[in-house]
Amino acid sequence: MAGRLEGKRVLVTQAEDYMGPATIELFTEEGAEVIADNSDLTETGRCQALIAQTGDIDVLVANLASPNFTGIQVTDLADEDWHCTFDMMVHPLHGLCQAVVPQMIARQAGKIVVYGSATALKGMPTVTAYSAARAAQAGYIRSLGVEVAKHNVQANLIAQNYVENPVYYPQKLREKESFQKSLARQVPLGRLATAREDALFALFLASNESDFFVGQSIPFSGGWTQ
Amino acid sequence: MAGRLEGKRVLVTQAEDYMGPATIELFTEEGAEVIADNSDLTETGRCQALIAQTGDIDVLVANLASPNFTGIQVTDLADEDWHCTFDMMVHPLHGLCQAVVPQMIARQAGKIVVYGSATALKGMPTVTAYSAARAAQAGYIRSLGVEVAKHNVQANLIAQNYVENPVYYPQKLREKESFQKSLARQVPLGRLATAREDALFALFLASNESDFFVGQSIPFSGGWTQ
Amino acid sequence: MAGRLEGKRVLVTQAEDYMGPATIELFTEEGAEVIADNSDLTETGRCQALIAQTGDIDVLVANLASPNFTGIQVTDLADEDWHCTFDMMVHPLHGLCQAVVPQMIARQAGKIVVYGSATALKGMPTVTAYSAARAAQAGYIRSLGVEVAKHNVQANLIAQNYVENPVYYPQKLREKESFQKSLARQVPLGRLATAREDALFALFLASNESDFFVGQSIPFSGGWTQ
Amino acid sequence: MAGRLEGKRVLVTQAEDYMGPATIELFTEEGAEVIADNSDLTETGRCQALIAQTGDIDVLVANLASPNFTGIQVTDLADEDWHCTFDMMVHPLHGLCQAVVPQMIARQAGKIVVYGSATALKGMPTVTAYSAARAAQAGYIRSLGVEVAKHNVQANLIAQNYVENPVYYPQKLREKESFQKSLARQVPLGRLATAREDALFALFLASNESDFFVGQSIPFSGGWTQ
Repeated sequence: MAGRLEGKRVLVTQAEDYMGPATIELFTEEGAEVIADNSDLTETGRCQALIAQTGDIDVLVANLASPNFTGIQVTDLADEDWHCTFDMMVHPLHGLCQAVVPQMIARQAGKIVVYGSATALKGMPTVTAYSAARAAQAGYIRSLGVEVAKHNVQANLIAQNYVENPVYYPQKLREKESFQKSLARQVPLGRLATAREDALFALFLASNESDFFVGQSIPFSGGWTQ
Repeated sequence: MAGRLEGKRVLVTQAEDYMGPATIELFTEEGAEVIADNSDLTETGRCQALIAQTGDIDVLVANLASPNFTGIQVTDLADEDWHCTFDMMVHPLHGLCQAVVPQMIARQAGKIVVYGSATALKGMPTVTAYSAARAAQAGYIRSLGVEVAKHNVQANLIAQNYVENPVYYPQKLREKESFQKSLARQVPLGRLATAREDALFALFLASNESDFFVGQSIPFSGGWTQ
Repeated sequence: MAGRLEGKRVLVTQAEDYMGPATIELFTEEGAEVIADNSDLTETGRCQALIAQTGDIDVLVANLASPNFTGIQVTDLADEDWHCTFDMMVHPLHGLCQAVVPQMIARQAGKIVVYGSATALKGMPTVTAYSAARAAQAGYIRSLGVEVAKHNVQANLIAQNYVENPVYYPQKLREKESFQKSLARQVPLGRLATAREDALFALFLASNESDFFVGQSIPFSGGWTQ
Repeated sequence: MAGRLEGKRVLVTQAEDYMGPATIELFTEEGAEVIADNSDLTETGRCQALIAQTGDIDVLVANLASPNFTGIQVTDLADEDWHCTFDMMVHPLHGLCQAVVPQMIARQAGKIVVYGSATALKGMPTVTAYSAARAAQAGYIRSLGVEVAKHNVQANLIAQNYVENPVYYPQKLREKESFQKSLARQVPLGRLATAREDALFALFLASNESDFFVGQSIPFSGGWTQ
């Protein structure tokens, strides 16, 4: 490989979930020293403590996922499920960023890469809680990105959908004809992305190649949203 | 006036704050029966109770505002201020909508109009908490709008900035030359909107004239964002 | 009606096509003096001459439509069809605006309302020429709007799709089950807009109620795009 | 380097202008065989002929630039300058794509990367012609991208601004204090991008790493637009 992250220390959160495994594999191949964390970031003070114990990091990969509660109409959504999306995806994002930004400002360099969702950008039925929380992430990164840009710290977000994932797209679902038809209609590219493809975009955003990107939420969805 | 809300019952929340007074004045002129609420919507169960006690409403005006904490860098933001924006603007929005949508679906008609913020759409330094919460509102309305559209219920959001308001733009600030220069640079129109102008857009979204609008966040900012 | 255009002189182009008839009917009801033009705006000098002969106008309704050539793949698109979209929709828009802006600047007031297309904002197969030309309109209005805002001239565009129209949606097509299924899938609201509903939005943008809108392209598509 | 374009044949148009030199240098380093063309693409039939004579190409880099006529108000814009932007940037883009897409569909693989402009996405005074033409490019790529996606052909556009370039930002301008102040205000990152940084993004979009991107116009502007 090309060593595009040679000499970089990278923290990946929720390392066994969502985009964690594919990210760790690729980033390690590219020369990064990856710190993989699996602790519960919803605990009070945990984000702050994690950054403190990790020490200097060049790249924070905020990989935060919650159930998406797809299929539950807004009228049936339980209060705890509503709050779950914010507790798992929004508050820890702020906790992590607030804790890591000072060291990045001190070094006048740093990258924050968020695995977010395209549902932050485009409406979809029966995912109101998830959409709201994912949009909060996008809005946060937009303003944070502008705020920290002058310190040469770049924060950006991947607004993804239709990426292979055993939780959101279990094999059984993928084999259904109805799913395949829906995929052909919804996604111009006509297939799911592999996790590797998604990690390749995160690699771009984590590397020095993306220094001019500021607070962006970039669709990664095979054309579902552009 | 034209009676554009003749025969409509409209609930306006946080009625004494933000866009409440201008909305109530205009909507009343246009023939609406306005129920003005000033209760604290952050209390558990309060949104549900408010809708229950109000009875049938044709239009919900979700007028929810919190301090915006402008000028506080992300590294200095207090935890309680972070949560304040979500507690005042995001969770009550869901509470109100979840409570009111069933009656609107039952009647196959209804409007939800949210006074949101253009900071949901465009990054700005030192307003990370506010931007995140306002973006959560926009993301919520985007998906809610799509979900309830088939029931002829329309939910839309005004993504506003630079609207006259004694809290965000006190007279003292407005008289400063530095503020006027900044306004000329940031806002192509070169002035603040009046609250009345803003309420006129809410009137459009609350009336039958906007039946084809679904889950949109429409900039209202004199060109600051488009 | 409410006289929302009382005392206004309004020029509507291509008056017998597309959104012309519905606009003229509604705007006249609202008190406007409507000048309906049906001349061929692709002729050299015609836009300039039209504005000159019309005299003072408060509102320009740029109603410009061409065939959309739907169903023709990019590889099969004839050169003359490609150019047709620009010749009918883009160059006359500039011709009209360039001719009318000086009198609006002189009066420090004026509105330009463009009936555009949501295909300017969202990709769709087999409409490349049409999308490009409609996007050119949106981009033009975005920058024109910013440029003329300080003179209290507002230029905005309706980014519409799925509006009743005998050319784009002939009755025969509308009766097909396949069309109705496609409509249910593509348009969250589940129906076409009436031309009247669309004209009501144009009325808002043409009236004094929209003074704070600057260079915007606002989706009007039942949720197809937001 | 990493050979990220190993074995690829790449056509770069207008090779001595705009982003041509930086692209050719980087892409060659990355293993591509670069065909650099400098012919006048406004000539009738030239795009078709160029693709025919070039033979199989894996990546088309549509590097098309015209004067931007900054500073000329819409009322003063000469007709020939208006048409110049479309003749140099829009019609050749279609000519090139129409000519190259059939071979890419035949191979079920191909990339089209357009160096476009962020003025396609955000309004700016005194660049109406340029904005319109650049927006036409973005709208074209949006629909073309959706149309060809199912053939595994990806078309995307870099919506750039504030990139070093001797024509748009001559050294003399860059040394002015007024320019530096404007830069600090307009661009959150506070500096121009180097052409190399821009080419690195084009490299990503030209390589196999971007297979899941469909018809997108991605801001590259240091935060000027997001």
